[in-house]
Amino acid sequence: MAESPITPRGKDFAAWYQDVVLQGDMAEPAEIVKGCMVIKPNGYAVWELLQKELDTRFKDLGHSNVYFPLLIPQSFLKKEAEHVEGFAPELAVVTHAGGKELEEPYVIRPTSETIVGHFFSKWIQSWRDLPILVNQWANVVRWELRTRMFLRTTEVLWQEGHTAHSGHDEALEEVLRILDVYADVAENVMAMPVIKGVKSRAEKFAGALRSYSIESMMQNGLALQAGTSHDLGQNFGKAFDVKFQNREGQLDYVWQTSWGVSTRLIGGLIMSHSDDKGLVLPPRLAPVKAVIVPIYRKDDEKALVLEAAHRIAKELGSRDCVVKVDLREGQTPGAKFFHWERRGVPVVLELGPRDIASGNIVMKRRDTGTKEILPQAELAAKFAGVLESMQTDLLESARKRLKDNTVTAESIGEVEEILKAVTAEKGGGKFVLARLKDDPACDARLKEFKATVRNIPLVDEYDGGGKCIVTGEEVDRRVVIAKSY
Amino acid sequence: MAESPITPRGKDFAAWYQDVVLQGDMAEPAEIVKGCMVIKPNGYAVWELLQKELDTRFKDLGHSNVYFPLLIPQSFLKKEAEHVEGFAPELAVVTHAGGKELEEPYVIRPTSETIVGHFFSKWIQSWRDLPILVNQWANVVRWELRTRMFLRTTEVLWQEGHTAHSGHDEALEEVLRILDVYADVAENVMAMPVIKGVKSRAEKFAGALRSYSIESMMQNGLALQAGTSHDLGQNFGKAFDVKFQNREGQLDYVWQTSWGVSTRLIGGLIMSHSDDKGLVLPPRLAPVKAVIVPIYRKDDEKALVLEAAHRIAKELGSRDCVVKVDLREGQTPGAKFFHWERRGVPVVLELGPRDIASGNIVMKRRDTGTKEILPQAELAAKFAGVLESMQTDLLESARKRLKDNTVTAESIGEVEEILKAVTAEKGGGKFVLARLKDDPACDARLKEFKATVRNIPLVDEYDGGGKCIVTGEEVDRRVVIAKSY
Repeated sequence: MAESPITPRGKDFAAWYQDVVLQGDMAEPAEIVKGCMVIKPNGYAVWELLQKELDTRFKDLGHSNVYFPLLIPQSFLKKEAEHVEGFAPELAVVTHAGGKELEEPYVIRPTSETIVGHFFSKWIQSWRDLPILVNQWANVVRWELRTRMFLRTTEVLWQEGHTAHSGHDEALEEVLRILDVYADVAENVMAMPVIKGVKSRAEKFAGALRSYSIESMMQNGLALQAGTSHDLGQNFGKAFDVKFQNREGQLDYVWQTSWGVSTRLIGGLIMSHSDDKGLVLPPRLAPVKAVIVPIYRKDDEKALVLEAAHRIAKELGSRDCVVKVDLREGQTPGAKFFHWERRGVPVVLELGPRDIASGNIVMKRRDTGTKEILPQAELAAKFAGVLESMQTDLLESARKRLKDNTVTAESIGEVEEILKAVTAEKGGGKFVLARLKDDPACDARLKEFKATVRNIPLVDEYDGGGKCIVTGEEVDRRVVIAKSY
Repeated sequence: MAESPITPRGKDFAAWYQDVVLQGDMAEPAEIVKGCMVIKPNGYAVWELLQKELDTRFKDLGHSNVYFPLLIPQSFLKKEAEHVEGFAPELAVVTHAGGKELEEPYVIRPTSETIVGHFFSKWIQSWRDLPILVNQWANVVRWELRTRMFLRTTEVLWQEGHTAHSGHDEALEEVLRILDVYADVAENVMAMPVIKGVKSRAEKFAGALRSYSIESMMQNGLALQAGTSHDLGQNFGKAFDVKFQNREGQLDYVWQTSWGVSTRLIGGLIMSHSDDKGLVLPPRLAPVKAVIVPIYRKDDEKALVLEAAHRIAKELGSRDCVVKVDLREGQTPGAKFFHWERRGVPVVLELGPRDIASGNIVMKRRDTGTKEILPQAELAAKFAGVLESMQTDLLESARKRLKDNTVTAESIGEVEEILKAVTAEKGGGKFVLARLKDDPACDARLKEFKATVRNIPLVDEYDGGGKCIVTGEEVDRRVVIAKSY
């Protein structure tokens, strides 16, 4: 038997991840464009399913999709002091166009708050124009030093929502409503449990009043920030002079929010569920739900088997539930099984001459690897249930991992002891719940062993006042500390 | 009555177009980014409907979506001599990134044949790897001199398909299959009749063997190239060394195609159907199919009217057929009618206290402006039919215009006479069918009066051999000559 093309997780988690991405037809590095990747058919199909889940929810909450320009005048970035400081080192700059040097360079958007601010100032005059609730699906470019497919790339596909409101309460409601959408999609679509919380002041978005995030735990125990929702306050409103006349007739600056998730989610999806055999996809995000591998030697067998295979595929499948028959010639059934296994197809069905004779079919579930022989006549009735079980089991298994690897610590030494040897390659990561004051000086102490505050959870179960492990001052709840991507 | 915010078509077609785009909430110029626009909610929603129609057809024909990087090493463009000559003057160049000057600049993709060629050379070894059929939805940047919203902008949203084949026949079949998809969507979804044909050698895509296009006639008689499908031959295969072992065991270069349509289609849609009152959308591309405008004075009337309006909206509407009730306060019914009229909503329904009493409802069709009073109980049964009629009528009307404004000419003087006074503003354009040799020197003669060969039609009705109006040589069919966008 040929050696597996996938490095085992236990040997080198980072190498395993790269192998799963490549073998799963998800992406490949675009080495000729620094830090970029090509998203391949299976990867892009997963992204399309994710987009649809998110987009439907955004629209149901009253958001409209729009599209702002890719290029932003360089001077725009400088209008919000914190924002330019945060993004300046990562900008890609267009200095020449149409055969000439430009009078003012453009930057390729790293995010669009500045150009959105400019247009909001044109669109908004009165409280009657508010709220504005828009979203765009777009690419952004940030010149990153260390890149990894899906997790951190120079160019990223994402959605960015931008909203403007007449008051802070309403803006904050929007920020949290979107955080709930992100958590819902992460848990109920991606089967990836998350912790909703507010980022520490040290870790917030450059230009935001406060940032909120969902944080997830990968199989190596490292944290992945899977989505963020920002309370921008009036910062961009002031920087771009976005004023409106309120109900009382006075001029005020608008309150804005912005929020985004990206193809990074696909990295989280892979590192949540996949195994040493390759990609594992929760059925709701599987572009192909099932593949039938026909087994035959002689021509008369072939005719019988293919006829049954096509009939079954037609029974099980629909536009939203793709079921394929693997008709490729010159491949053994074994090679076909490995092919679909590495691509994360939830259910593989084997159908050979003996099955035709007995009226049975062999069903293999990707996550558990269990094989079941069942009558062909029962398959259609069982199929949806199998997909549903797989979806639930993956979420439960990820929830258990999160619970089992979340620990508490009562001193900075204890936090360091738990986290110091953790790396992306070796794993062993934990989420450490500890009391820490929300002060950049306290965050800085964690940098000494390359950990960060992931967020300050919003949920009650993480409550518990006591003394800060750095300053000794009283704080009212624990934060999540971890190493992260 | 307030003056219409829309310039009449007869007065200035170009000003009319700009007004319809702005008043229809389709787009607005992004004056701070040269030649760019912001696509606004109604415009983006139309684009999403178009994307879905195209994307479904591409996938049904076996294409997969993928995503290649935005940035292309500058040297890549130079590998195909014609290609760089065609695109060099329009490139936007990134010279600095991450705070440093780059060793090799990147260009923002003007189109992706070069970077696709690079990856095809990695993916293809044998005839077993062929065909490769991929597509991407992406933005491209071309530094255009004269821009117009949707029709020609610096940044464009589009799809670009790229395929590789083991032989020329198969590649050409793909080119024509996609041209058929484009024509199908243009005619049966956009209600915009097109002429399928091959571009003259002078007008082909830089780097293609031959280019094929669909050409449509706008209300001012100007031509719009609405989509192109290119037979790239082995040009990019040779430039990027994309070799494969054929069935006979020999190495050969692949045969490639590329094809694209863009947000330019929306410009064509607008200029095909809209009128002096604003946007007219064929129902299949209308994000909102119907709006109910409730009419009431007193609170008890309001309660009754809104109850009925919501009931009717629920009866007519679904996720794919959006029906809204206009609940905005502080707007007169008249203002609401104008609002939806300018946005191209196919059907507006009026519902007031008298209608509640009589059990009737008033239905107004956007294209004809006709009002019909009908029993509320009959509305649901009639609604789909009204949308279907409107779709058909718009196509028929556009077909008639194309037919009425297509003329033949037998000399270059006659062609000039017909076209010389035509401008985008004044209109009066025609499609002139004339015999012309496919030689860049002949195309050049048309430049003298700012016309071009739009294409050489593939359909038989344009057949007819005779003498070329420039060289006098025998040619076997007529070409379409017109002024164009």
